[in-house]
Amino acid sequence: MTGTPAPVPARATVGIVGGGPAGLLLARLLHQAGVDCVVLESRDRAYVEQRQRAGILEQGTVDALRSSGAGERLDREGLAHDGIELRWDRRAQRVDFPSLTGGHRVWVYAQTEVVKDLVALQLRDGAPLLFDARVSSVTGAGTDRPVIHYAHGGADHTVVCDYVVGCDGFHGVTRKAVPEGELRTVGRSYPYSWLGILADVAPSNEELVYAHSPRGFALLSMRSPAVSRLYLQVPNGTDPAAWTDERIWDELDARFAVDADWTLARGPITQKSVLPMRSSVTEPMRWGRVLLAGDAAHIVPPAGAKGLNLAASDAIVLARAFGQLARTGSTAGLDAYSDTCLRRVWRAEHFSWFMTTTLHTAPDQPAFDTRLQYSQLDRIAASPHAAAELARNYVGMPVG
Amino acid sequence: MTGTPAPVPARATVGIVGGGPAGLLLARLLHQAGVDCVVLESRDRAYVEQRQRAGILEQGTVDALRSSGAGERLDREGLAHDGIELRWDRRAQRVDFPSLTGGHRVWVYAQTEVVKDLVALQLRDGAPLLFDARVSSVTGAGTDRPVIHYAHGGADHTVVCDYVVGCDGFHGVTRKAVPEGELRTVGRSYPYSWLGILADVAPSNEELVYAHSPRGFALLSMRSPAVSRLYLQVPNGTDPAAWTDERIWDELDARFAVDADWTLARGPITQKSVLPMRSSVTEPMRWGRVLLAGDAAHIVPPAGAKGLNLAASDAIVLARAFGQLARTGSTAGLDAYSDTCLRRVWRAEHFSWFMTTTLHTAPDQPAFDTRLQYSQLDRIAASPHAAAELARNYVGMPVG
Repeated sequence: MTGTPAPVPARATVGIVGGGPAGLLLARLLHQAGVDCVVLESRDRAYVEQRQRAGILEQGTVDALRSSGAGERLDREGLAHDGIELRWDRRAQRVDFPSLTGGHRVWVYAQTEVVKDLVALQLRDGAPLLFDARVSSVTGAGTDRPVIHYAHGGADHTVVCDYVVGCDGFHGVTRKAVPEGELRTVGRSYPYSWLGILADVAPSNEELVYAHSPRGFALLSMRSPAVSRLYLQVPNGTDPAAWTDERIWDELDARFAVDADWTLARGPITQKSVLPMRSSVTEPMRWGRVLLAGDAAHIVPPAGAKGLNLAASDAIVLARAFGQLARTGSTAGLDAYSDTCLRRVWRAEHFSWFMTTTLHTAPDQPAFDTRLQYSQLDRIAASPHAAAELARNYVGMPVG
Repeated sequence: MTGTPAPVPARATVGIVGGGPAGLLLARLLHQAGVDCVVLESRDRAYVEQRQRAGILEQGTVDALRSSGAGERLDREGLAHDGIELRWDRRAQRVDFPSLTGGHRVWVYAQTEVVKDLVALQLRDGAPLLFDARVSSVTGAGTDRPVIHYAHGGADHTVVCDYVVGCDGFHGVTRKAVPEGELRTVGRSYPYSWLGILADVAPSNEELVYAHSPRGFALLSMRSPAVSRLYLQVPNGTDPAAWTDERIWDELDARFAVDADWTLARGPITQKSVLPMRSSVTEPMRWGRVLLAGDAAHIVPPAGAKGLNLAASDAIVLARAFGQLARTGSTAGLDAYSDTCLRRVWRAEHFSWFMTTTLHTAPDQPAFDTRLQYSQLDRIAASPHAAAELARNYVGMPVG
């Protein structure tokens, strides 16, 4: 320890490691509930606000953002989507959400914007949120005073907490606070990645288009009415630099084609990156006074649009539990946290796996497996029950 | 050719190779429609009537058997089943068919009995059905007079036909009548088999029980109120003799256990055999004047109870098409035969794959994949749409 004063309180009811959507939303919901917390984020503000991630919000996520006070710009700029389109084997089929789910829909609003809104609100209220705060360890998970150790501005600091919530991702340090063998992680990787691009061009379809193609999966998405977000299935280890803009557009056209006529509107590509694909679940999501939320506890491949929404639902369940503790002294909500979240997590894991394996073509995929994928997609087109299963999973399960 | 007179007519509108359920049902339906045919079966009558196969009939199959005249004993001895039970992860869930399918159910009536009824009827009517008739080849598939070549009673014979229908299974000779490269077969095998037993004991559950277990899949089925039919997942290449009766019952108890109390009623095991598991589809199902039906065109693993029912639906579609040709001279039904059947075949292939991969534990199966299976089964218990998809596929799609 040096003589520099700690930039956030040295004592907090809840210490949150990681200022992504899970940590920030939890902090806002705790603030609303009158529970004090600190948020420590290892990166700087600009990095966190520019990090390209998801862009589809379930209704429960939107409701939580609104009740956290961060709903204003979302309500103004977010795009309500009432369905998606599937394409395969020269067919196309729209899946209508409201008619299949009892009126539910999703919202297109980029994770970058969610994070910007939450950060601005947190700083405006003067609530403790520290960037460039590198957490080195969390200790005392088995005691009633766990401690976060972090470095900031060249000095070492600590926050003594009642509870520590790890929102610091799959490679975060918080889970290392739990003794070896107490957490169990299961998962799998996939034999393909996504090449994602941002392009300054109006999306060629109003709704998302998920395309199965023998050339590989493609996804048409968007960030706003003027910005397209598009993805191509590529082999693992692909260098985005190996894909020229023209090759990307040509390949997208080939994969989305259900007839010779349909082509994408093209525009300047402003970003290219490659995303690997993994499923992972760590159980339980709580040990002692340490709780895990968002990517720190579970990873889904992106085809189900579930990652951000799972992070949000973890934050919602946790905020309710801490609110209950503050109001009544009961730890019932915290004690049930892991089981409550894991039911939803496993549903999302299964749905994400389903969307991934139904729509992608694995290297050396047997012809029979491709026909099974067609049969599944044909069934979604033919059966309201099969379509409803997709739609209900897509719009999301109830939180809690 | 020898001097022995041919035991069936040397000329037929429809020559049917294979006297299993597909061939026999087709023959009966053609008989009802006034279309003449001959059935040539390579085995003897006793073998065909004792061959243990499926035991679940969809409503469409039952309707066809009734209209073929073979419904009398089925109506007397067949057991109507309104659901199945699923067990997994110490849970049990019944899937109710009538409420989920608009009133449909299935029937338990063994394939052996279906075959006995159809054989008896065919012989009673004096319709041409020849056992021990070894078909060596079918020629002239591309002409309007295809010919079946067969040996019987030490002599060689031929039947000149308008059409030949191959109901002679996956390894049958009829498909070899089609020139190389004109048919495409896709499929897959599975890394496990079933050890099936017949036991003289009343079934321990009124309905079928499909059990997922970390020890491997198990299925409780029945042939009659006094005869149980039970299956255990075993490694490929298992020798049934390696399984003592006691070991079989103990293993069944362990796999069906949702609590410590539940045990199976035991009785004398009268038959043990090992069934490999394969999916396969040959397309198209017609080339020239040769048509394929049943296992000659498609194989499903048995967990979906679809093999016999697909054979029956092929026969139904074919009988309608030949009836149309006889009445109107139109080949429209025959021309559409392959496409008509393949829609239903692929749905059944997908469902059979789904049931198989959801309920079995593959060798070295990752823990994550087991949790996905649980999540799928949990979903069937929680979502009427997911349950309806299972129920509707199980009771079967409409024929044609």
